Amino acid sequence: MADNKKMVEAITSMEVDFAQWYTDVVRKAELIDYTSVKGCMVLKPAGYAIWELIQKQLDARFKETGVENVYLPMFIPESLLQKEKDHVEGFAPEVAWVTHGGLQPLQERMCVRPTSETLFCDFYANDIHSYRDLPRVYNQWCSVVRWEKETRPFLRSREFLWQEGHTAHATAEEAEERTIQMLNVYANFCEEVLAIPVVKGQKTEKEKFAGALATYTIEALMHDGKALQSGTSHNFGDGFAKAFGIQYAAKDNTLKYVHQTSWGMTTRLIGALIMVHGDNEGLVVPPRVAPTQICIVPVMQKKEGVLEKAYELRDRLKKDFRVKVDDSDKTPGYKFAEAEMRGYPIRVEIGPKDIEAGKCVICRRDTREKIEVALDELETKAAEVLDTMQKEMLERARAHREEHTYVARNMEEFRKTFSEKSGFVKAMWCGCQECEDKIKEELAVTSRCMPFEQEELAEECVCCGKPAKKMVYWGRAY
Amino acid sequence: MADNKKMVEAITSMEVDFAQWYTDVVRKAELIDYTSVKGCMVLKPAGYAIWELIQKQLDARFKETGVENVYLPMFIPESLLQKEKDHVEGFAPEVAWVTHGGLQPLQERMCVRPTSETLFCDFYANDIHSYRDLPRVYNQWCSVVRWEKETRPFLRSREFLWQEGHTAHATAEEAEERTIQMLNVYANFCEEVLAIPVVKGQKTEKEKFAGALATYTIEALMHDGKALQSGTSHNFGDGFAKAFGIQYAAKDNTLKYVHQTSWGMTTRLIGALIMVHGDNEGLVVPPRVAPTQICIVPVMQKKEGVLEKAYELRDRLKKDFRVKVDDSDKTPGYKFAEAEMRGYPIRVEIGPKDIEAGKCVICRRDTREKIEVALDELETKAAEVLDTMQKEMLERARAHREEHTYVARNMEEFRKTFSEKSGFVKAMWCGCQECEDKIKEELAVTSRCMPFEQEELAEECVCCGKPAKKMVYWGRAY
Repeated sequence: MADNKKMVEAITSMEVDFAQWYTDVVRKAELIDYTSVKGCMVLKPAGYAIWELIQKQLDARFKETGVENVYLPMFIPESLLQKEKDHVEGFAPEVAWVTHGGLQPLQERMCVRPTSETLFCDFYANDIHSYRDLPRVYNQWCSVVRWEKETRPFLRSREFLWQEGHTAHATAEEAEERTIQMLNVYANFCEEVLAIPVVKGQKTEKEKFAGALATYTIEALMHDGKALQSGTSHNFGDGFAKAFGIQYAAKDNTLKYVHQTSWGMTTRLIGALIMVHGDNEGLVVPPRVAPTQICIVPVMQKKEGVLEKAYELRDRLKKDFRVKVDDSDKTPGYKFAEAEMRGYPIRVEIGPKDIEAGKCVICRRDTREKIEVALDELETKAAEVLDTMQKEMLERARAHREEHTYVARNMEEFRKTFSEKSGFVKAMWCGCQECEDKIKEELAVTSRCMPFEQEELAEECVCCGKPAKKMVYWGRAY
Repeated sequence: MADNKKMVEAITSMEVDFAQWYTDVVRKAELIDYTSVKGCMVLKPAGYAIWELIQKQLDARFKETGVENVYLPMFIPESLLQKEKDHVEGFAPEVAWVTHGGLQPLQERMCVRPTSETLFCDFYANDIHSYRDLPRVYNQWCSVVRWEKETRPFLRSREFLWQEGHTAHATAEEAEERTIQMLNVYANFCEEVLAIPVVKGQKTEKEKFAGALATYTIEALMHDGKALQSGTSHNFGDGFAKAFGIQYAAKDNTLKYVHQTSWGMTTRLIGALIMVHGDNEGLVVPPRVAPTQICIVPVMQKKEGVLEKAYELRDRLKKDFRVKVDDSDKTPGYKFAEAEMRGYPIRVEIGPKDIEAGKCVICRRDTREKIEVALDELETKAAEVLDTMQKEMLERARAHREEHTYVARNMEEFRKTFSEKSGFVKAMWCGCQECEDKIKEELAVTSRCMPFEQEELAEECVCCGKPAKKMVYWGRAY
């Protein structure tokens, strides 16, 4: 137990210091490492493998809706970035600039893409001619760069991995439909795969994407009561099309501008799953994105037949699960603690006595419940436990969010709630940015979204008392 | 036939102008598009989908050998790039430099990675402590940037997609073993998946990678007789480890330097498959990497039941194949030509008479052979045709290479062969760079590799007449 304790001791308890707990988990679970490049991180095998599973399952969902993948350059010439006024204002302050190619200064400097709307527009302007070319529903998986001052692993780094979908449509209705369709793909993915419940809604004017007509978002609540924007989908209308001249010949032979959308999710999702599911033993990975779903730990592995049995079980299980054996020379106690730290959904313990009795012990990571299982029922039982765990992780996260979602009807209640609690606060809003600014200044919270599921909590704006137009989710955000 | 002809007319014949044929094919088959970023291209859906299939199958082969994927930053601080002398000399002239982050000049400029040896070394120096941490067998899929002056789609562009494996081992033997192992993975992949036969061998000192002890390569012969370096695997010995201080505590508790390797394949492979398999009708994609393996073309599709039958066949075939129906309003002739241009391995033609007779026609892309098939045998026959095609494409490419591989025993033969023929020329070499330089200057050819399968064609160097040490493959290269 000594080394077991030592390993666990190294994590700060989340109740003591949530930020430190988070940093401890990403390091001790070996998800990332820091680098000599300030603000950029290494995604280590355990972290990257989660991203691969996210990517695989999200990509399959994209393709079911007709998305095709492409790859565009990572560089954007300055003149291209400047074509859409709002967009350049939003991004220019935080891009990295390439000024030299080899030994020569460039004639025009280029930024490393912070997002690729301008490149897609430049491409579509040449690629789209007729209504027959529409819709274009393209996506790319790549990394982007934003020169952030403060960075945190997964949540905010100068370079991060993501996907960005960029579509072009014949009509405004079709563009709006695609924007909402992708938001729903994101929401379902978060709930069904990452076991993270989300609130779907629209961003306010103040919080929307630079250059968008409307930005939709999914917002998740972390264990510490802070919000995390987990995916966004933007409807651009024909604003970019007009700036870039993207026109098509309609059936009646008139020239029309296309209507565009974009939507993205990032490695930030890994930060979300850590902060929604993790505990004081470490990471807890939802089974559907767990690179190792089952870790077999042999007990008294030097006894004849134990390791052989462990390998035999692995070979049986690997047909249906992602499985490995920890056959290192560490003690079982250390291995148990390490399996918990790394968040493997199921740990299978097997020793000489178990083998004799034809059974083993399954330990479920989230509840730490131990179940004795007959060896010939292991596949069935493991599948059952993983299914239950995936389902219950979502239910638990939803219950946590419900418990930490509050209502405020006036500024006093609003102030009191945020001074005593941490979570989402639902409050009515008149729709003017002045109130939003005032709330931000006074309470240090932002509007997370105007949820699709509106409630009429009061008739007046929580801030100014004028007639309310929308119910808004407010919160402190990552 | 008129529109059919028009489409085909647009390709230059490869016998007339191979370079123009190549450019025509990549554009007309919609693999790429040019961009406003000089020297960079867009990988369009048809091109990117081939890369996805390459990536999926190559990645599976990597993982079978124990490779784990990671992701490292795209930026390299200048001081890091400079740590290994030969390496920086090789790459510094062709990197893109980032000098500003947001509105501020950087304290130290950074290049966009041309390759990531220095970043992996910097990471390994912190990550590797003990023999227990070895081997490290990491790989990343990403894009890299090299500021080339002359660019060509897939073959040479300023940004390209690739994978780069970087490994660290306890012993020199183990590093050499991994270097050769990955070269074999590459060679088998090229032959089994891309149907491209390759020559395996070692690069000469002059041609090896900047900073490597030894570089191994696979070389393929294109249809025009030019060589294409298709994958390389480098053994670094402990050179980088010494420059970066990557040491581990051995079992006997002494500190030792690790031995490293790196290996990479790129989107250039798509260029290779175009130039090995393509013909005057357009692209020919090997079935294993064909995003569409079967294209069903309905004939007289407005007749009742034709389109329905086409969709029914698609739904049956899609269980085992990547399949689509061309139900556009183009004429069948145009669709046939387009399917050939895009290189779909199988085209299925089905019209009212076929349906009545319970059959359809399969047209095989490479031989353009037409086969009548009973509808209830379509799956079996399609699988058979795809298998045969995959196999025969490799055989044809191998026969072409054999026919275009020549022998030269002295400079006169050497000169004559390269003035009259285009292909590989095997010739003996004394091992000194002077002869290599002289041959390059006089014949405009380079040493492609010293093949593993050596032959003793003569006792003297083809150039200087001194005793020969190695048989070398020479050629004009892309």
